[in-house]
Amino acid sequence: NRRIKAPTGNKLTCKNWLSEAAYRMIQNNLDDQVAEHPQELIVYGGIGRAARNWQCYDEILERLVDLEEDETLLVQSGKPVAVFKTHADSPRVLIANSNLVGHWATWEHFSELDKRGLMMYGQMTAGSWIYIGSQGIVQGTYETFFAIANQHFLGDASGRWVLTAGLGGMGGAQPLAATMAGFCMIAVECDESRIDMRIASRYLDKKAMGIDEAIEMLNSAIAAKEVISIGLVGNAASIYNELYDRGILPDVVTDQTSAHDPVNGYLPMGWTLSQWREGAKQEPERVRDAAVASMAHQVSAMLKFMDAGVAAVDYGNNIRQMALEYGVKRAFDFPGFVPAYIRPLFCEGYGPFRWVALSGDPNDIYKTDQKVKELIPNDRHLHHWLDMAREKIAFQGLPARICWVGVEDRYRLGMAFNEMVTSGELSAPIVIGRDHLDTGSVASPNRETEAMADGSDAVADWPLLNAMSAVAGGATWVSMHHGGGVGIGFSQHSGVVIVADGTDAAKRRIERVLFNDPAIGVVRHADAGYESAIQSAKKNNIRLPMIDRASKSGSR
Amino acid sequence: NRRIKAPTGNKLTCKNWLSEAAYRMIQNNLDDQVAEHPQELIVYGGIGRAARNWQCYDEILERLVDLEEDETLLVQSGKPVAVFKTHADSPRVLIANSNLVGHWATWEHFSELDKRGLMMYGQMTAGSWIYIGSQGIVQGTYETFFAIANQHFLGDASGRWVLTAGLGGMGGAQPLAATMAGFCMIAVECDESRIDMRIASRYLDKKAMGIDEAIEMLNSAIAAKEVISIGLVGNAASIYNELYDRGILPDVVTDQTSAHDPVNGYLPMGWTLSQWREGAKQEPERVRDAAVASMAHQVSAMLKFMDAGVAAVDYGNNIRQMALEYGVKRAFDFPGFVPAYIRPLFCEGYGPFRWVALSGDPNDIYKTDQKVKELIPNDRHLHHWLDMAREKIAFQGLPARICWVGVEDRYRLGMAFNEMVTSGELSAPIVIGRDHLDTGSVASPNRETEAMADGSDAVADWPLLNAMSAVAGGATWVSMHHGGGVGIGFSQHSGVVIVADGTDAAKRRIERVLFNDPAIGVVRHADAGYESAIQSAKKNNIRLPMIDRASKSGSR
Ligand SMILES: NC(=O)c1ccc[n+]([C@@H]2O[C@H](COP(=O)([O-])OP(=O)(O)OC[C@H]3O[C@@H](n4cnc5c(N)ncnc54)[C@H](O)[C@@H]3O)[C@@H](O)[C@H]2O)c1
Ligand SMILES: NC(=O)c1ccc[n+]([C@@H]2O[C@H](COP(=O)([O-])OP(=O)(O)OC[C@H]3O[C@@H](n4cnc5c(N)ncnc54)[C@H](O)[C@@H]3O)[C@@H](O)[C@H]2O)c1
Repeated sequence: NRRIKAPTGNKLTCKNWLSEAAYRMIQNNLDDQVAEHPQELIVYGGIGRAARNWQCYDEILERLVDLEEDETLLVQSGKPVAVFKTHADSPRVLIANSNLVGHWATWEHFSELDKRGLMMYGQMTAGSWIYIGSQGIVQGTYETFFAIANQHFLGDASGRWVLTAGLGGMGGAQPLAATMAGFCMIAVECDESRIDMRIASRYLDKKAMGIDEAIEMLNSAIAAKEVISIGLVGNAASIYNELYDRGILPDVVTDQTSAHDPVNGYLPMGWTLSQWREGAKQEPERVRDAAVASMAHQVSAMLKFMDAGVAAVDYGNNIRQMALEYGVKRAFDFPGFVPAYIRPLFCEGYGPFRWVALSGDPNDIYKTDQKVKELIPNDRHLHHWLDMAREKIAFQGLPARICWVGVEDRYRLGMAFNEMVTSGELSAPIVIGRDHLDTGSVASPNRETEAMADGSDAVADWPLLNAMSAVAGGATWVSMHHGGGVGIGFSQHSGVVIVADGTDAAKRRIERVLFNDPAIGVVRHADAGYESAIQSAKKNNIRLPMIDRASKSGSR
Repeated sequence: NRRIKAPTGNKLTCKNWLSEAAYRMIQNNLDDQVAEHPQELIVYGGIGRAARNWQCYDEILERLVDLEEDETLLVQSGKPVAVFKTHADSPRVLIANSNLVGHWATWEHFSELDKRGLMMYGQMTAGSWIYIGSQGIVQGTYETFFAIANQHFLGDASGRWVLTAGLGGMGGAQPLAATMAGFCMIAVECDESRIDMRIASRYLDKKAMGIDEAIEMLNSAIAAKEVISIGLVGNAASIYNELYDRGILPDVVTDQTSAHDPVNGYLPMGWTLSQWREGAKQEPERVRDAAVASMAHQVSAMLKFMDAGVAAVDYGNNIRQMALEYGVKRAFDFPGFVPAYIRPLFCEGYGPFRWVALSGDPNDIYKTDQKVKELIPNDRHLHHWLDMAREKIAFQGLPARICWVGVEDRYRLGMAFNEMVTSGELSAPIVIGRDHLDTGSVASPNRETEAMADGSDAVADWPLLNAMSAVAGGATWVSMHHGGGVGIGFSQHSGVVIVADGTDAAKRRIERVLFNDPAIGVVRHADAGYESAIQSAKKNNIRLPMIDRASKSGSR
């Protein structure tokens, strides 16, 4: 029974701050205030792990402690497999998680390998050591709800409510994001302990044990012009349908159970939690079949809500695909959140940029908040976000901040943080990273690249180029994952983390890496024909060889 | 109508030798003495291309001419998409070809994207600019036949003959490799022009227009104790069956048509060449169905041969999978060539190492041949290979040499070549690379990773780690491909090329890159439990964290 806390302060255990950062961040991923099931090395998102098993975890730490400044540790699906001589401007860790050859990229084959100890599910930031707790998704969810309010309710969410399900590692961010955007929310969650955890961390306001109690809470809040979030204990598949049958219609409906993983992520209707957890180990096929049937039932309710005028959206857990495969032909009739609300941001290189204070000192984050406001002085929406975040978000593990910014700002912020480390304004180095759910780092036809303008949804060259250029630029660690938020077979993505240790070398690396990383997102969207991406490339001096060529030869 | 020849000599068109090397090598890939169908940008292996289309090709050349020593060109499925600022020790080109998200990794989806101009088939060395003509595969094929002679015929191939099919870019190497190993060969090829081309380039001895003529040639050669190779014009599917029915049994049977690509790679029985080529464009489904049926017919004949005691082996074109999907249940009863003959070499980091003289001067290659003998003085098999190669292999395009060597020798050879450039012994820099079919660079469950000891055949983390560590080490260009020799959905692999320009910086890069690249192959095989790989790691000071850990704690 382990209890893990990342070291804090500015004394090194490793030989330099680059390996020290990896050393602290993998531990932070398994802090019990951060991870969902740290005893099983599960960070979030179904079975998203930080290392393959405890021996691998221990060995990773030992190798990091010894690592020289010109060496690189290789990690294969959570297992440390080699230490290679490279050079000081190379990454200190290279990670590949959960990747399978296409024809074999199924949950069945993956689980077989997983069971035999040959693989690990890396999710996105779990196996790449840059998870920062539920905050990591709060802003993305907030931006989504904000866009929903704009598109459907003339920018005013008051008196409106969202129905959702799942209060896990990521889904737990929904109630806070909803209330920040002015919506009330009922979130159905089958595991009461998750509801209690969200209330304790101030992401959720109230708990209800049944529909009537929840609706009463909701109605009195709306009557009092208050904004409230309610965790409702129960199974989403049955509750969504019962609500519809009783004529209770939300204004928005979505879902964030771990539907992407039909064995470990979704409680079948009529099962208890312990039957489910036991069953997932003993008879995974039976669980899968029952779970998928329940998902189909839940998606059918979402379609009925949609037909009745409710704004319905898939929130990135692949539940539509599961329902479709079960036989719900109309499953894809409601859109995913990216094409519906987020793509315009991706076109300009915006995405879930984030950073972590290795010192452990919250003041370091507050100082960086202030620096962001200074460097991006005219973005009121961003300033509002930073104020809300500071007020409402409790840190989990090492203090961190998420902040969606674009290609023109990420490297500037990174370089400024680095300077603050140099000058001693911050008490230790800063780790800078992002989610894999970003502008240029993922191919995922049911989520980030759903319905691309040119039909290139499934083209996976981009995340691979993204990872290789991050290595080429000198990121501190780089990861390539398969699966992630939508499950085995459905996505390919990469992660980039870079350390601002206050040195000149870090400054040069940051300038390259934090520009190129979102720039490839702009390029990818420009290549698909999005005009705003082409404009953003122009504005930021990103060269687009074939587009420039066409315009020179007059064919554009 | 273009005719492409790579520039030669030691005058630069680009700003330095690193980008110059890429500039020359992409052109060399499309030299009409090198490529199979240069007018369509097809280099080899079905529709393996060097660039997506002619505009992309021209733009790639222009971008390479302008490229600064701290810039990197990004190529996405044969299209130049960006130029990023990186640094001098980074690759000059990063390439990702034909990669698709798993669930969509099918020929159907790929062809749809290809038709709409969104993708390109990169094969292995076609889209990564390190194809060297048929020589590239001669040695691998020779090593395979050599191992067959050892395993099945007590090391003596005299009087024995091999039946095969396909004399394309790679398959064309078979007759030369067979005769080098002492076998006679009948190679069935449906396109007479390919037979003539192989005779002209001295890879093949004779042409026969029908079975009787071929058998007569064969019998008189065997009677005269001569070794001979015969190209037989015809369709493999019908000829294999007819031979069996007439009771004519070879000693070895294999096949190297482009069965991996059922629309463009395999002539259906009863079709003419022009019906086929037209049909591939107009009604691809009909071609595919007919081709797969014919493949199944051919594989059935191979199984009958096997049952009659003939050594049958799949030579890496995925024909067994095609037959299996058609309904030939026993298709995988005969093994692939890697588990049967090549894996022991991969365990020690051996693979198809190769280099090219940018000068265009054959003497540069002869001098490197000599250097290899000096540096590896006691390997008689290798010396024999080099002598045969010099005598029998006609250069195509820029002079090049293939030479299977292991992890302990590759970096030593690379550094020695670099020194020969420094000293002026060679008249221009040398480009060093390898096939993607190598020890640590590919996941391909029907070929390179078939029947791995631990069942990890489909795990694709390894080629991704391989590519990232090549970037980290400072290779000159690095590529990540999907598909390759076994087709869409069936493999993931990477390529590495590095330039020996005689500088000190190149020396340091070569030492890292050419060690780490095969080392990851040793690691991958050690991880799967191969004892010879574990020994090779020990001998070469390659650290294996978890294996070392286990042996420290006494559990090994
Ligand atoms: N949209 C995005 O940006 C985004 C980002 C990350 C993850 N995701 C996806 O969102 C999903 C949730 O992620 P997570 O990290 O919160 O996962 P998680 O596994 O930590 O949490 C899932 C929660 O759903 C609950 N649940 C399961 N079945 C239920 C049912 N039938 N009824 C009610 N509750 C049920 C579980 O008890 C658990 O608390 C995943 O599929 C993930 O891949 C989306
Ligand atoms: N084993 C290895 O090391 C290795 C290496 C590279 C490629 N390959 C695979 O080998 C295959 C051949 O590669 P290539 O580069 O020579 O391909 P290619 O496309 O250049 O040549 C294939 C040849 O097969 C002939 N052919 C097609 N159908 C035929 C039929 N029914 N009967 C007789 N001949 C027929 C074609 O006319 C053509 O000349 C591919 O599938 C490739 O992926 C194997």
